[in-house]
Amino acid sequence: MILILTPNIEPESNRYKQLMAHLARLQDIQLRVHREQGAEQTLTEIYLIGHTSSIPLEEMKGLPGVERVVRVSEEYRVLGRHRDDHRPSHFDYQGLRFGQDTLHVFAGLCAVDTREHVDLMMKALRDLGQVCTRMGAYKPRTSPYSFQGHGKNCLSYVFELAGKYGIKVIAMEVTHESHIDEIHEALSRTGDPTGVMLQIGTRNTQNFELLKIVGRQKQFPVLLKRGFGITLTESLHAAEYLASEGNHKVIFGLRGIKTNMGDPHRNFVDFAHVPVVKRLTRMPVCVDPSHAVGSRTRGPEGILDLLHATAQGVIAGANMILVDFHPASNRALVDGPQALLLEELPHFLADVQIAREAFEKRTALAARYAPELQTAVA
Amino acid sequence: MILILTPNIEPESNRYKQLMAHLARLQDIQLRVHREQGAEQTLTEIYLIGHTSSIPLEEMKGLPGVERVVRVSEEYRVLGRHRDDHRPSHFDYQGLRFGQDTLHVFAGLCAVDTREHVDLMMKALRDLGQVCTRMGAYKPRTSPYSFQGHGKNCLSYVFELAGKYGIKVIAMEVTHESHIDEIHEALSRTGDPTGVMLQIGTRNTQNFELLKIVGRQKQFPVLLKRGFGITLTESLHAAEYLASEGNHKVIFGLRGIKTNMGDPHRNFVDFAHVPVVKRLTRMPVCVDPSHAVGSRTRGPEGILDLLHATAQGVIAGANMILVDFHPASNRALVDGPQALLLEELPHFLADVQIAREAFEKRTALAARYAPELQTAVA
Amino acid sequence: MILILTPNIEPESNRYKQLMAHLARLQDIQLRVHREQGAEQTLTEIYLIGHTSSIPLEEMKGLPGVERVVRVSEEYRVLGRHRDDHRPSHFDYQGLRFGQDTLHVFAGLCAVDTREHVDLMMKALRDLGQVCTRMGAYKPRTSPYSFQGHGKNCLSYVFELAGKYGIKVIAMEVTHESHIDEIHEALSRTGDPTGVMLQIGTRNTQNFELLKIVGRQKQFPVLLKRGFGITLTESLHAAEYLASEGNHKVIFGLRGIKTNMGDPHRNFVDFAHVPVVKRLTRMPVCVDPSHAVGSRTRGPEGILDLLHATAQGVIAGANMILVDFHPASNRALVDGPQALLLEELPHFLADVQIAREAFEKRTALAARYAPELQTAVA
Amino acid sequence: MILILTPNIEPESNRYKQLMAHLARLQDIQLRVHREQGAEQTLTEIYLIGHTSSIPLEEMKGLPGVERVVRVSEEYRVLGRHRDDHRPSHFDYQGLRFGQDTLHVFAGLCAVDTREHVDLMMKALRDLGQVCTRMGAYKPRTSPYSFQGHGKNCLSYVFELAGKYGIKVIAMEVTHESHIDEIHEALSRTGDPTGVMLQIGTRNTQNFELLKIVGRQKQFPVLLKRGFGITLTESLHAAEYLASEGNHKVIFGLRGIKTNMGDPHRNFVDFAHVPVVKRLTRMPVCVDPSHAVGSRTRGPEGILDLLHATAQGVIAGANMILVDFHPASNRALVDGPQALLLEELPHFLADVQIAREAFEKRTALAARYAPELQTAVA
Repeated sequence: MILILTPNIEPESNRYKQLMAHLARLQDIQLRVHREQGAEQTLTEIYLIGHTSSIPLEEMKGLPGVERVVRVSEEYRVLGRHRDDHRPSHFDYQGLRFGQDTLHVFAGLCAVDTREHVDLMMKALRDLGQVCTRMGAYKPRTSPYSFQGHGKNCLSYVFELAGKYGIKVIAMEVTHESHIDEIHEALSRTGDPTGVMLQIGTRNTQNFELLKIVGRQKQFPVLLKRGFGITLTESLHAAEYLASEGNHKVIFGLRGIKTNMGDPHRNFVDFAHVPVVKRLTRMPVCVDPSHAVGSRTRGPEGILDLLHATAQGVIAGANMILVDFHPASNRALVDGPQALLLEELPHFLADVQIAREAFEKRTALAARYAPELQTAVA
Repeated sequence: MILILTPNIEPESNRYKQLMAHLARLQDIQLRVHREQGAEQTLTEIYLIGHTSSIPLEEMKGLPGVERVVRVSEEYRVLGRHRDDHRPSHFDYQGLRFGQDTLHVFAGLCAVDTREHVDLMMKALRDLGQVCTRMGAYKPRTSPYSFQGHGKNCLSYVFELAGKYGIKVIAMEVTHESHIDEIHEALSRTGDPTGVMLQIGTRNTQNFELLKIVGRQKQFPVLLKRGFGITLTESLHAAEYLASEGNHKVIFGLRGIKTNMGDPHRNFVDFAHVPVVKRLTRMPVCVDPSHAVGSRTRGPEGILDLLHATAQGVIAGANMILVDFHPASNRALVDGPQALLLEELPHFLADVQIAREAFEKRTALAARYAPELQTAVA
Repeated sequence: MILILTPNIEPESNRYKQLMAHLARLQDIQLRVHREQGAEQTLTEIYLIGHTSSIPLEEMKGLPGVERVVRVSEEYRVLGRHRDDHRPSHFDYQGLRFGQDTLHVFAGLCAVDTREHVDLMMKALRDLGQVCTRMGAYKPRTSPYSFQGHGKNCLSYVFELAGKYGIKVIAMEVTHESHIDEIHEALSRTGDPTGVMLQIGTRNTQNFELLKIVGRQKQFPVLLKRGFGITLTESLHAAEYLASEGNHKVIFGLRGIKTNMGDPHRNFVDFAHVPVVKRLTRMPVCVDPSHAVGSRTRGPEGILDLLHATAQGVIAGANMILVDFHPASNRALVDGPQALLLEELPHFLADVQIAREAFEKRTALAARYAPELQTAVA
Repeated sequence: MILILTPNIEPESNRYKQLMAHLARLQDIQLRVHREQGAEQTLTEIYLIGHTSSIPLEEMKGLPGVERVVRVSEEYRVLGRHRDDHRPSHFDYQGLRFGQDTLHVFAGLCAVDTREHVDLMMKALRDLGQVCTRMGAYKPRTSPYSFQGHGKNCLSYVFELAGKYGIKVIAMEVTHESHIDEIHEALSRTGDPTGVMLQIGTRNTQNFELLKIVGRQKQFPVLLKRGFGITLTESLHAAEYLASEGNHKVIFGLRGIKTNMGDPHRNFVDFAHVPVVKRLTRMPVCVDPSHAVGSRTRGPEGILDLLHATAQGVIAGANMILVDFHPASNRALVDGPQALLLEELPHFLADVQIAREAFEKRTALAARYAPELQTAVA
């Protein structure tokens, strides 16, 4: 059960204290308070955990400072959508809005290799008006004998260049808690020239200890990739590990499922799940066509499968695209064959734009036919 | 190896006889002649089967009546795309063109139940300008104790109503060779008021004996569904069974893969394979969102997952949509829960139209950026 | 609901006629009568199909000629195990008993290639006391351009040689209804020197039209292979297609599931399902280690994976083994790499014997620890 | 490339110094030295990593102190079996030998709940002559709202009771590096009454950071479970992460693959891979029938599927069994439904014994038929 309090309520206020005193007397119920500082107001939610089924909804609604009460189902308590649940499905970071109603492209390097390539990549993004990118410093690799990324050694120049080219958010995978500190330190050292979205990869989707630690910090939003080999439900539960520790700025990433039924693609593209995640939870949804498709094959129209998959994600409402580019993909140290070339970036962005406009037209069409079926997604 | 002869060459001509006499002398080579009567010209192709690797290409090119020679790879000899292969990727039926460059919607009844419902369905299609439909008479069911379709008993009224409402092609599943005769007879009996596209379902994708028999008749084009549990490659090989027997009018259908990794959808939607099939073969590609998604859940924009999946197929170039509608889906005898309602048909068609326009814009965009990468798809 | 009548009841008897007259008056209930001629007695079962839930069990028990009544669950009506269901889990054919309590090895040729090889194979079997074999005449192949088996042309010499070497039952795959007639004719022509067990392969598990036709004949028992890509439940439903048409002599075959998760084996070995099939149904269970494992790799003990998989099936209670051998596997036309060599047959049979003895010891052990948990399996 | 030095060679010896001086001059080659202190002798292996293909084998064989040289393939350098590779396939811990030739049962509690249950469990093991067990203190759970294990709070009494009942090795899952320290401290605090085998669960198979840290310590051997959703090859690569950091005492665990194709079992039992892992690597192989089968269903012989799966693993050469028991499974906090009851332990152990004897007979049989095919497994 979630109590949504009146906006801007102060913890020192009488109403708040009365409320908490009342709640403290509930038997077998634990409380978890979540405060979210927005641009215009501060929202406070109180999660009641335990045997809440016996607590009368009406009684809770009548408590001081309580604006609304949501009785959550067992699944996805914090991030889920529940009956009469009007909690927001977006968050702000670095002046950008990440929501179920927005779209951001994170084109960039799967693995940072040289400063020169980072510079070329970011310059190209800036020239095309982009303010987000992906930059892989820590690379989990199947074999211990493969290149594992430059790690913290590359952070300073990556962040400095981001500042130089006006990049506001860098998606960056972390595989160990120490990486968060290294990123924090490198940002401070370079004067916080950019923001970072921590990325949890598919191999760590159920690395619950890492999720808990990432969930405890609120500096960085998190992109959690779906785990391969587990169901969608299990991956969404993993997102709750982040949220239940306090960090609600979570984006969920689809990146394909590992099975030979997806051949000749590297993974089985799963972007039909975009609307499913948006229906079950309030998380914005990211698609990763590079890892899903994993090749540079193209259809007879001359369009890369990778662009087709991206368009499929976007026309169904995807909110973020994570995509590998490389200035010289034949020299990339990781996943070169699937990377797009820098000179393909304008085409890629224009293609995404067509798909996004189609999605918006489809949404407007649906509003005309059945307005009562739309859920607020803001 | 395929010899494409000069158009309209006559079997009685000297050139043709000389050619055949020469070919008959080749060691360990079998010949299969395929003649396709088009609206404007008759195309003749001769397939050389056996140890063709030792036959010099240049020698074949110089033979009388030979216009072009294509050395096929082992895979998908007839239906595949091979190097320097300019054979067409479309066919005509009932005055309609089915190609990798067209799009047709086959909305209709998964299983015919009553004459009244067929009438309602076809009337709705006619009113919206549609000339194709699906009508299931023979239903393969998991359990022998479930309703198995009305079979031949419903054919007459289905065809008559099609004639009444101007329906030109009905997609209809067959599960036994006798069904082809029954359909042929019912059409004759009713005065051939419509055309039929024979549909081979996913349970029979590798029912090679049925494929051979369906492939031997050329009256009806064929829609072959992908098999669940087998790779895409294996399903494409199955299409070759049809083509190698003589029927080249084959459309390939994607309908999702059976695995719980696709939950909560009924199957794992596989429409990212649309460009793959179009690249590997010359077959038009159909998507079946009804069986792939299998439910009436919808995203927060109020749009059904089923419409999202359809849009995903179309924006990537799908050429045909097979979709279940029902005038009273709660009374449908088969797959009611996944059927769209008749009143949703206008929305559905408008939604498809948006996605198709987006695909066309994307194709035009690609032509501007990289015209040399486009393959002829006509 | 199944009414099991008193043994040897005659259709012309008064009791029987009274019973049938009573049953005919039941509303919305279809009757299907199954008579099984055994060595010692004739068993008659009447299946009541339709809305049987409203029929009182006690009333049925009191009808003339009724010995017992079994209220079946919806699933696997004929072949399933139901509460208080003491119908037998075995059948007799060619003087052999095939039951959940017996074990037969069907070693032989995946595809018949030459008369000489059939002769060598059967001679080796005879010399080792074997009376069953497998012989593939009709081969379903992924590509239409691969060798498809010698079909009916080889039947006469296969059957004659079987007679010569005392082979009583040959497992033989059929892929079309005409094959049953061809087999029947070839047997008659050669004087019925042996018996045949019709085999339905994994590509035809849900070829319901073939199943119905095979189910309608009672001359030959049937081995139905599990379908790849469908659940175990769906494959067991397919077995009901055979049984609901009248043929209850059905053996269920496990042959691995097609997924790369089973690599480096050809399929994912599924022999842990042996006890599951025996619990859910009354069918004997066959394992096919050749197609499941599909290679000749071996563990460090020098034992082939194929023998390990066989032993795993047998120690869990498998009742039949289908295994590919070949006198000269490097010249086999189909699946040569997975075939065992004739000289490996003694080792194979001795290995199977060890596993079977272990199973029997385990069964005896279980009887000591928990005799009340054992179900009659005879 | 691996240089195996003469046993007991001293790092201070001239031979050793000459060897190292020579190796240091090799271009682009990194060295990693691994010393293993055995009961009777100390083995030293030097791993040459980098462009070793240009190094002549003969030259290396002639270097001082070198007894043998193994040119490793790219895969599984440390743990793999390579051509002419006679490195051992066993290790010793707590006076027990864990090898590809031994079998140990680790029956115990999936999750420690109360001291009383630990006591009951260990007493039962002691009474039946067992010296190993499993005890789960840290439990990774799909939902953050589920019981997560008692963690370090239960370690002291678990270890003390192990000492009391003569338990020598406890398999215990760790999900974070801090758990290793906690276990080390608790052991020290309680006077090292027992040993611990660190277990990496299927959710962390590719948590490479955890693997590296676990691999760097050599106090505890490691049981690495196969990851679900990844191929066997990828899981074996993960084991190399442990070994490449120095810890070669690694056991590989099979626990089933997550797919509905395994229904009605919880996972798809994968024990046919036992001989595969033993062939590709030198790791002993563990099977986990509890998580693979995940239920208490039984076949008509009255034997639990779980016992059948165990027997299948053992008859194919499994070296370790991890199995859940519980004194009161209806009160177990984790995975109660799949736990065996304490009173079933004697039956379980006797059943395992039958399967092990069958494996030994099979190995002896293979030695008679084809002794030259056996690889040393000691």
